[in-house]
Amino acid sequence: MRGFWRTRAGQARRATMLHGTPVGRPSTALHVMGLALIFVAAGMAICVLIELASTNQDSGALALGAVISGGVGGLLWWRTRVGSTRTRDVFAAVGWTWAAMTLFGAVPYVLAGTFATPGVDFVEQLVNSIFESASGYSSTGSTVMENFERPGRGLMMYRQLSQWYGGMGIVVLAVTVLPYLGVGGLDLIAAEAPGPSSDRLAPRVSETARQLWSIYALSTVGVTVALFVVPGPGLYDSIAHGLTTAATGGFSPYANSIGHFDSLLVELVIIAGMLFGAVNFALHWRAAHGDFGAYARDSELRTFVSLIVGAAAVVVAVLWLSEPLGGGEALRAGVFNVISLGTSTGFSNAMGAESAGDFAVWAPAAQMVILMLFVVGASAGSTSGGIKVMRARVLAGHMMRSIRHTQQPRAVFAVKHGGVAVSEDLVSRVAGFFLFYVLLICFGAVALTMLGGDLNTSIGTIISVLGNMGPALGEAGPTSSYAEAFSQPARLLLAAFMLIGRLEIFPVLLMFAAPYRTARAALHG
Amino acid sequence: MRGFWRTRAGQARRATMLHGTPVGRPSTALHVMGLALIFVAAGMAICVLIELASTNQDSGALALGAVISGGVGGLLWWRTRVGSTRTRDVFAAVGWTWAAMTLFGAVPYVLAGTFATPGVDFVEQLVNSIFESASGYSSTGSTVMENFERPGRGLMMYRQLSQWYGGMGIVVLAVTVLPYLGVGGLDLIAAEAPGPSSDRLAPRVSETARQLWSIYALSTVGVTVALFVVPGPGLYDSIAHGLTTAATGGFSPYANSIGHFDSLLVELVIIAGMLFGAVNFALHWRAAHGDFGAYARDSELRTFVSLIVGAAAVVVAVLWLSEPLGGGEALRAGVFNVISLGTSTGFSNAMGAESAGDFAVWAPAAQMVILMLFVVGASAGSTSGGIKVMRARVLAGHMMRSIRHTQQPRAVFAVKHGGVAVSEDLVSRVAGFFLFYVLLICFGAVALTMLGGDLNTSIGTIISVLGNMGPALGEAGPTSSYAEAFSQPARLLLAAFMLIGRLEIFPVLLMFAAPYRTARAALHG
Repeated sequence: MRGFWRTRAGQARRATMLHGTPVGRPSTALHVMGLALIFVAAGMAICVLIELASTNQDSGALALGAVISGGVGGLLWWRTRVGSTRTRDVFAAVGWTWAAMTLFGAVPYVLAGTFATPGVDFVEQLVNSIFESASGYSSTGSTVMENFERPGRGLMMYRQLSQWYGGMGIVVLAVTVLPYLGVGGLDLIAAEAPGPSSDRLAPRVSETARQLWSIYALSTVGVTVALFVVPGPGLYDSIAHGLTTAATGGFSPYANSIGHFDSLLVELVIIAGMLFGAVNFALHWRAAHGDFGAYARDSELRTFVSLIVGAAAVVVAVLWLSEPLGGGEALRAGVFNVISLGTSTGFSNAMGAESAGDFAVWAPAAQMVILMLFVVGASAGSTSGGIKVMRARVLAGHMMRSIRHTQQPRAVFAVKHGGVAVSEDLVSRVAGFFLFYVLLICFGAVALTMLGGDLNTSIGTIISVLGNMGPALGEAGPTSSYAEAFSQPARLLLAAFMLIGRLEIFPVLLMFAAPYRTARAALHG
Repeated sequence: MRGFWRTRAGQARRATMLHGTPVGRPSTALHVMGLALIFVAAGMAICVLIELASTNQDSGALALGAVISGGVGGLLWWRTRVGSTRTRDVFAAVGWTWAAMTLFGAVPYVLAGTFATPGVDFVEQLVNSIFESASGYSSTGSTVMENFERPGRGLMMYRQLSQWYGGMGIVVLAVTVLPYLGVGGLDLIAAEAPGPSSDRLAPRVSETARQLWSIYALSTVGVTVALFVVPGPGLYDSIAHGLTTAATGGFSPYANSIGHFDSLLVELVIIAGMLFGAVNFALHWRAAHGDFGAYARDSELRTFVSLIVGAAAVVVAVLWLSEPLGGGEALRAGVFNVISLGTSTGFSNAMGAESAGDFAVWAPAAQMVILMLFVVGASAGSTSGGIKVMRARVLAGHMMRSIRHTQQPRAVFAVKHGGVAVSEDLVSRVAGFFLFYVLLICFGAVALTMLGGDLNTSIGTIISVLGNMGPALGEAGPTSSYAEAFSQPARLLLAAFMLIGRLEIFPVLLMFAAPYRTARAALHG
């Protein structure tokens, strides 16, 4: 199957299958971008209806945004067709698509004047709109919003929806596209459960994608219904948080996030939803086909659960010993936030600054544990961020191997994952990815301090944003606005880092490779 | 040659050659440890003379320390002989030797009551003595000393001498022992200059070691004479700083370090000395044999120089733009401290807390650049710390390769160093080392915050200590004492991290492997 799509005949067949007769200019990037913008426009259109039925304040901005996105998207989709499906071109297409969603997705905020507080110029509004859009489509959850009551309820729902789109894009990308390029988490899943079952997962790309969307939609509905059933959230709040929980995004229409409800039941529902979203969707797919044992067999998931349990135990203990919190308070604040950050969602249950859930004022030891969670993230093939547990396991395996190498320099040891040897090629790619990740953190931290941040805030924020968490430490904690904590150029840098982290670095690097090659070819004749 | 020492006949011949008739119990670890302790005792004995000629206050403590170290060392050396020279046993021997030097080296401080200020119990004195000894023999330069005038001048010279010993041990280890195990920097040097010259470097291990000691001794004498010639330092100060400059250690008998002299000339001499110590000693060896072009040909050195120049330019600019410093002041403070920290020496030219050279109060951007220098360090095969520029280059090469892999998944690319392809085995080992380094930083930072440190101080200090710098950021800056900034268990942890960093991790891991194997064998019959 994998080989077939790489042949010329396979590519033609696939293009025809997906898009009817292949017409127009061949450009994978523009074609995918067009399709994504059509989806974005549809989302905006739905939110126009919500706006009309509620506050009826930002309907025009949303409608105009839908027309612009839909128009440009439709034109691109209609006038182009899938071109090269070489790895580098697919990667570049993904990068450009997310960049386009971010820019076009910012239009409603700009038109509605969402960030137009008195004394704020247009450039500031533009920067904040792009930041909020990037945070949405990358399912990060950092926000520059300060007055959560000001925008219309339709626009606020669009903000929630943008994260849901981001999550959906990542699920499809991670489980259907990347494994074909040999870089996703699915090949490892397949390696762990050899036999007919591993082939069953992707009988046809489009069919698999449809099934994954169904699982994603069902989890959204599940969280929404559960939230609606428990006392507290109404229909609007249930949908709003259902969307961003399934996406492990973290946006909330309330400044106090989940703390708004001050309800243990709501927090438990959200915890269940976040954990569901942090699991490799290939496992959900197997479970949906009757193989519930897939969860227990998956060694990445087992490691993730151990990490979360361990981190929660340490954080709860530190909070209980060091802070003026009772045992129950420490347990609730610790467990909720560890899961929210361990799944890279970024919801907070803080009821105002310096309350129990405000981890920016926790003891340094608890903050340091959180910082580690920011980096590791959850399962590959999920909506979570960070480097992913699978990569952390491969890196740990390589590390342990290097001790044994020191003892027996001539022996050959394989890195194992779930009892199966991992290819040296994968170990090498994971190490390369991790090096980039560390370099980006270093570069970003230096840049943020240059743009005026303090040491704590800069390090915590760059790690948080690259791992698509949302809130960070210091002046960028769960009860703060990034608009106050960071200068304009710093916010643009952070928006770029959200996309880089979301797309796992390489697509962003390759975004500029194709135009560069074209330009160079033009120059040299 | 390499093969020969591994044969049984070769080992016997080598043992006979180095130590006369092989007698006693075979144990490489105990034998090397014995030899090192005899050297330590000799150093203490010399300092007794200095003490007698000056303050005559701590002579008894030094003399008794010399007797203890010399007695134990002599006994060990006499009653054991070189046993296994397998990689893991040599590594373990190196680890135990440094641990023994640290513990026996702490004896004079304990006996002299160097850290016995009023209200301080014996455990605190013991912890501080071990900390100071570890900081000395690892050439780190962090200190728990608060009253620099209290100890006798002989004891203070012993403190300086401990760093000189540490530096010497590392030079010999890095350039003569490690390459035979395939883990030093020398194999890369050899790769860059193929032909007869690369074989000339080590005609015989003991001869090479002798020549390297000569170069190290000459650089010490050079710095000492230069310091004595320029106005300011007397003979005692010149020797004291000559010892710790050559070792890129950073101890000074003055609380204000180099700031004590407030002399640009002194700083320039120290800068030259630190740079000399941060260069791979194999290059100095070549230059001593007439090949001065070796410096220019070495790509690691070129990268190091670029890094230092770049970092200095950024830091000076940041200081000039952000701080209330004039151009001249920013230049002097910036360049001196960047070189002091870039060579992992750790001298400071701060004239009191919050003065120009106190980098703990610099703008966050300048501090972040310093933090990066902490990690990278200088050349392999030098007395500097950190991961070394050579490893950083290999990691960068692997990183760049992983982008190209994304573009052409089936192509094979080699990582290059100085125009020559680096073996995949080395790339893999360097990646393993770096992963351990990162994990240690994470683990250490969590542990330090658990033991009461704040976020800034903990991260900065663990990176500084693992890279053998000395001063760190936050509450552990160049004008602070580690005794005030850290609790007792935190100081012991930091002392352990100094040794781990100095020995580049693996020897410390293997220290416990041999006793573990012995114990397991005993248990299982």
